[in-house]
Amino acid sequence: MKLKEVGEFGLIDLIKHNAIVDPADVVVGIGDDAAVYVPAVGRYELLTTDMLVENVHFDLAKTTAWQLGYKAVAVNLSDIAAMGGQPRHAVVSIGLPPHLEVDDVVELYNGMKEICREFRVNIIGGDTVSSPGGLVINIGVVGAVEPEKLLRRSGARPGDLVVVTGTLGDSACGLDLLFRQGWEEFGFAWPLVSAHLTPRPQMAVGPTLAAFGATSADDISDGLASEAHELARASGVSLRLYADKIPLSAEVVQAAAMLGKKPLDYALFGGEDYQLVFTIGAEDFDRLPNGPVLFTAVGEVLGGQGVLLVDAADASTELEPRGYNHFR
Amino acid sequence: MKLKEVGEFGLIDLIKHNAIVDPADVVVGIGDDAAVYVPAVGRYELLTTDMLVENVHFDLAKTTAWQLGYKAVAVNLSDIAAMGGQPRHAVVSIGLPPHLEVDDVVELYNGMKEICREFRVNIIGGDTVSSPGGLVINIGVVGAVEPEKLLRRSGARPGDLVVVTGTLGDSACGLDLLFRQGWEEFGFAWPLVSAHLTPRPQMAVGPTLAAFGATSADDISDGLASEAHELARASGVSLRLYADKIPLSAEVVQAAAMLGKKPLDYALFGGEDYQLVFTIGAEDFDRLPNGPVLFTAVGEVLGGQGVLLVDAADASTELEPRGYNHFR
Repeated sequence: MKLKEVGEFGLIDLIKHNAIVDPADVVVGIGDDAAVYVPAVGRYELLTTDMLVENVHFDLAKTTAWQLGYKAVAVNLSDIAAMGGQPRHAVVSIGLPPHLEVDDVVELYNGMKEICREFRVNIIGGDTVSSPGGLVINIGVVGAVEPEKLLRRSGARPGDLVVVTGTLGDSACGLDLLFRQGWEEFGFAWPLVSAHLTPRPQMAVGPTLAAFGATSADDISDGLASEAHELARASGVSLRLYADKIPLSAEVVQAAAMLGKKPLDYALFGGEDYQLVFTIGAEDFDRLPNGPVLFTAVGEVLGGQGVLLVDAADASTELEPRGYNHFR
Repeated sequence: MKLKEVGEFGLIDLIKHNAIVDPADVVVGIGDDAAVYVPAVGRYELLTTDMLVENVHFDLAKTTAWQLGYKAVAVNLSDIAAMGGQPRHAVVSIGLPPHLEVDDVVELYNGMKEICREFRVNIIGGDTVSSPGGLVINIGVVGAVEPEKLLRRSGARPGDLVVVTGTLGDSACGLDLLFRQGWEEFGFAWPLVSAHLTPRPQMAVGPTLAAFGATSADDISDGLASEAHELARASGVSLRLYADKIPLSAEVVQAAAMLGKKPLDYALFGGEDYQLVFTIGAEDFDRLPNGPVLFTAVGEVLGGQGVLLVDAADASTELEPRGYNHFR
């Protein structure tokens, strides 16, 4: 069935069920001029938004609608985690090409609802419009953070360690694999492709970091190089990163060899990992829990400005902030 | 200068100044993973979002970038007013065709900042991406409302009057005029075209209505017919509207005559007026202030369902909910 057969209001009826997973503070959800909720007493409100555009952020030949919906929410939740907060509510704006199948739109929302259910986020509103130029998804997420748990990009102090969660580069390598015929035959390719199509944001980690002593944080959406520059600039410090400390998965090493690429380039310049990078004193780092999340110290904070990369032969080079840059 | 010459981060530097007009409750504005603000104690939070797509919602040959920015914010503020609330903060996502001039993007933000300054709304974040399929603007606005001032679509009671603010149909008539060669020669055309390109939402009225006894409200974005059906359906009532009571400006009557159209059709089915429609008891209606905003009782609330239109000859017909419907 095509969108033009159900119309705008018919579509809204199809997608609005199961949108609320935690009704406690929702006063008005989907279906009025604005959504209404009760803010958490004594907490700050967080607000983030991300727009995903067809053929810029995604290719409908390489992702299912369900995966796309999941990811569109994930990238916003990751921003909330990077501030030390917990997501509460989402609004979804969607620009739909009229030729799209209704089933695909329902699957897109099913992907959103799955990750929202997992992290107890309510979909409380949105906008549904036509878009002749291709599919566009914009999600806004509000969250809450206790003031003492708030993490900004600007708190890094000389002497801190630079720490990342998980492994880096998997998502960018997975994207490369998706454009290679027959990638499905390689077992090691699946976790990389999954990291790209359905990234899992570090929602459990973000809200704990300030209490462990983290001084600044950012999520890794544009590659470690770009995010390291953001942290350095916002904090008025420089960072020194060690190439051989950057955590790479066994899969990215295998896949990069097959693709004739350097795995470290995926980690530094690839982006879309949705891991966290943060700074923390060395003693506080030692108190971070062992598992289930991998924490790796990849460098240190110094005075000055910029980001240096130290290679295995102990040679230092300025690390360029290149990563994805729209309009270039 | 083209966007590709300044890049994503250069553009953000060009637009982020003067984004905060009321810093009192802003903890973190543009430039981190998420914006952070302090919610108002004892109030509900409101959240609304609207997406505007090139060649669906606007035509860059008929609007300046400044006007488009102003309107993109206005349509969101109108939703906050319709809930009885006051807007506080906005986030702006924008998908930009790479061939766009940087000056046009700066003007787009200048239009947004003008209406934000006027209504004391801070731009605290957003997302800036490329969009090969045309310009897309998505704005999210958070506001606050005292619980006792909250107005929903669902509170209309049989016996209430149906009331609208201002005059209706001006915007849709202005849109028709924009496509007619030489409209600039007609003095009466200017206020209609302005109503279409830079609508002024009823921000002062919305927050006062509940205290005057209004029982439900909606903003008129899709034409009175469509909104009347929304109110009737949400409240479980029917509405009876009187055609000759619907307030029309002298300009819309003149312009419609020239265009060979019925002015009432613009009011009922045209949309984008961003006036308010609300229901209120007859005695409470009499207590509404005389000016500066025009309040007109256009009908009454009855039991049952649907919307009837009574014409000048006292004949009743079912009023169709037609208005703009995406995907049709």
